[in-house]
Amino acid sequence: MSYYKKLTATDLIKISGFVPRNRILWKNEINEEYSHDELTTEHYYPEMVVKINSTQEVSNILKYANEHKIAVTVRGAGTGLVGAAVALKGGIVLDMTMMNHFLELDEENLTLTVEPGVLLMDLASYVEEKGFFYPPDPGEKSATIGGNISTNAGGMRAVKYGVTRDYVRALEVGLADGSIVEFGGKVVKNSSGYDLKDLIIGSEGTLGIVTKIVLKLLPLPKKNISLLIPYQNLEKAIRTVPLIIKAKAIPTAIEFMEREVICDAEKYLGRKFPDNQADAYLLLKFDGNSVEEIENYYDNVAKICLQQGAIDILIADTDERSEGIWKARGAFLEAIKSSTTCMDEVDIVVPRSEVNTFVEYVHELRAKLNIRMKSFGHAGDGNLHVYILKDDLDDEQWHELLTLAMDKMYAKAKELNGKVSGEHGIGLVKKVYLEQSTPKTAIDLMKKIKAVFDPNNILNPGKIC
Amino acid sequence: MSYYKKLTATDLIKISGFVPRNRILWKNEINEEYSHDELTTEHYYPEMVVKINSTQEVSNILKYANEHKIAVTVRGAGTGLVGAAVALKGGIVLDMTMMNHFLELDEENLTLTVEPGVLLMDLASYVEEKGFFYPPDPGEKSATIGGNISTNAGGMRAVKYGVTRDYVRALEVGLADGSIVEFGGKVVKNSSGYDLKDLIIGSEGTLGIVTKIVLKLLPLPKKNISLLIPYQNLEKAIRTVPLIIKAKAIPTAIEFMEREVICDAEKYLGRKFPDNQADAYLLLKFDGNSVEEIENYYDNVAKICLQQGAIDILIADTDERSEGIWKARGAFLEAIKSSTTCMDEVDIVVPRSEVNTFVEYVHELRAKLNIRMKSFGHAGDGNLHVYILKDDLDDEQWHELLTLAMDKMYAKAKELNGKVSGEHGIGLVKKVYLEQSTPKTAIDLMKKIKAVFDPNNILNPGKIC
Repeated sequence: MSYYKKLTATDLIKISGFVPRNRILWKNEINEEYSHDELTTEHYYPEMVVKINSTQEVSNILKYANEHKIAVTVRGAGTGLVGAAVALKGGIVLDMTMMNHFLELDEENLTLTVEPGVLLMDLASYVEEKGFFYPPDPGEKSATIGGNISTNAGGMRAVKYGVTRDYVRALEVGLADGSIVEFGGKVVKNSSGYDLKDLIIGSEGTLGIVTKIVLKLLPLPKKNISLLIPYQNLEKAIRTVPLIIKAKAIPTAIEFMEREVICDAEKYLGRKFPDNQADAYLLLKFDGNSVEEIENYYDNVAKICLQQGAIDILIADTDERSEGIWKARGAFLEAIKSSTTCMDEVDIVVPRSEVNTFVEYVHELRAKLNIRMKSFGHAGDGNLHVYILKDDLDDEQWHELLTLAMDKMYAKAKELNGKVSGEHGIGLVKKVYLEQSTPKTAIDLMKKIKAVFDPNNILNPGKIC
Repeated sequence: MSYYKKLTATDLIKISGFVPRNRILWKNEINEEYSHDELTTEHYYPEMVVKINSTQEVSNILKYANEHKIAVTVRGAGTGLVGAAVALKGGIVLDMTMMNHFLELDEENLTLTVEPGVLLMDLASYVEEKGFFYPPDPGEKSATIGGNISTNAGGMRAVKYGVTRDYVRALEVGLADGSIVEFGGKVVKNSSGYDLKDLIIGSEGTLGIVTKIVLKLLPLPKKNISLLIPYQNLEKAIRTVPLIIKAKAIPTAIEFMEREVICDAEKYLGRKFPDNQADAYLLLKFDGNSVEEIENYYDNVAKICLQQGAIDILIADTDERSEGIWKARGAFLEAIKSSTTCMDEVDIVVPRSEVNTFVEYVHELRAKLNIRMKSFGHAGDGNLHVYILKDDLDDEQWHELLTLAMDKMYAKAKELNGKVSGEHGIGLVKKVYLEQSTPKTAIDLMKKIKAVFDPNNILNPGKIC
């Protein structure tokens, strides 16, 4: 018998008292999409999906679920890559996408207050229209901001601007017992007791359900320029990155990419990339308030790249050209996905100085295992995405090779003082690697903290630790 | 009988097995300075002071103390203002100031690894000589970096650069049972389980003892310019600040000050401030990589200030003039202290837009209570320091008025959605105000987290919550 209560018709009636029946999906009314996220290898159906419309609904459902030991899994747009939003133990999925309102833009405090279901792309255009800037920039623009907070999403601008965590001033959170509490505040500094806000960020719905968010904004930089820099091979490209950092020029983003991924993206988008002749590329962005301000930086960086064997420096100084390149970059994941039958990924992060060592290791591993693997990623912040592709392997072969490849890559990352996840989180499928790479003392602390927040273990059970 | 074991000669012998006797101060060998921090109203003597020299020593002592229920209080330079480093329950004080080595400057990863006893002023000059920048800039330069992490110190550059928390990549921590564990890593992004690192930051030695720190550095901005802006009164000065923020110009620092504090500082330092004719001043700093880059910003800000009634704009564009002004600013606390017999302070933080309301409230309160109160602070980040001065009041009068003033100010801060502490922490003396201003749910979570890290409650007992 499961620890968790299976939902009955009585539960449906009770929960319909908190949320109108037309916002509840019950058993066979539940679409297939709710059984997985973007990681399509893991399927678990919830017994009930509730389309949440208010904080009060979250509170009422949590209180009920906690009293009856019903598992509750929070879900945004379902764009996660580690199975964090999947209802491993059945129970209720809280779909937060209807809670998608902009609540307040406070220009005097440079903050934006939103509900968790606001999509990243809507958030970006909302603030940019008003001359503000929300720097975190994950590739998946149709993710919700709540989901981004759940995984502490990073994105491409982390080199200069940091990650989601760095832009969260306050969170309203529904705790397991249904109480609603605010952590943090609309203040720039805070040394008032333990930092519970940062504990919630990156906790993937296992410690509480985020119901309101106060984000920190910056003024929008007035200009940006991108450089696309072709190299004969990836090694040369990546070896340049620590030298750029060492030269004290901090680009907004430093991405690396290989020709085959660019070709996949061209095919997927049906449009040409500015260049696809070279084996490997660095893509850099610089931003600032005037062309002159930016020029100083990129002149120096261009020089370093040429010294390190770059074939050319292609400058995208109009919005149109720059957007074209970054759109292609944004489509890499989907493009790779569409090129194969099934895939899984690692989202390893290593010290910036070790990126080259890790990428070389991936190349060796690919040759040795004879499996298709594609990689791209954030060379400037050490966060690498490697995709392992099933193609026409049978299930058994695929699982064997996938496990082998993953084991090897996580072991290598650990050896290089890296971490299991840079931005996608742990969820369901990276738990074993988190456990392997983290001191037992730290894992034990995490488990006990989980028990403090959620003594009945109803919140997204079976995730992280 | 106390819960904590009183130290005996046997304990001294045992601990002398971990640390040479000449680095232990025992009972009456303990200097008076170890009985308090910069908040001179609270005095508690430890039974033993150990001058720590290594992580292993921390580990051994913690293990012993945990087994024998001996209280352990960590202490840096003793510059705290809330009694956090005071041994309320006796036991052992770990003096970390000998662990003051620079371990590694990693230019490829832009990190600096240090021991916790490194002084802030030494850290700043070490990295600046090499063209790097550690942005947090608390007024107290003789504090240790470990102490800054304990309180999540903020400082003057928080407007643009954030606080200590934003610059900590990894911490090595001694836990209550003596185990040593690293939280975080030399990585730019991290979504690998719960954020234990940020729980340690700001926990004032109650969850673990920091033994090694990996800090994030930035390239050193090449130029900076300060503006000293006199106003007829403080209200006019402070009302300008939200307009500066709204104009999307982000200075490095925005400080406010009144004539009487400037006069105190002139007297204390024995040198003239560039101007002391006006009642109130804003002091702004801008930094960047060229004069042109900075000019765009400050031209616009100067215009706003003049529109809002500034009397003049005094530009300090040489290092010497600028340093003179900031040195005076850095001496405010000591200057006020030397002007009275005894004092206590609040370190409230409110949303930036509420600074003026709060300062006006303080002025009314001062008139009503007829007690000397001086304030200065970080107008740009909402963090205000208000000092209540004893002068020649007798003890009873002083305590009565002090308590009344504090109660009123913390209540007002709460009303304005502020927090108890912006950067000095909670320690011993702000506990009651933290409890009053924080939801019980959050306080309960903090207490349970404390019990997870430190089940025997040996680490800095009686602090925070």
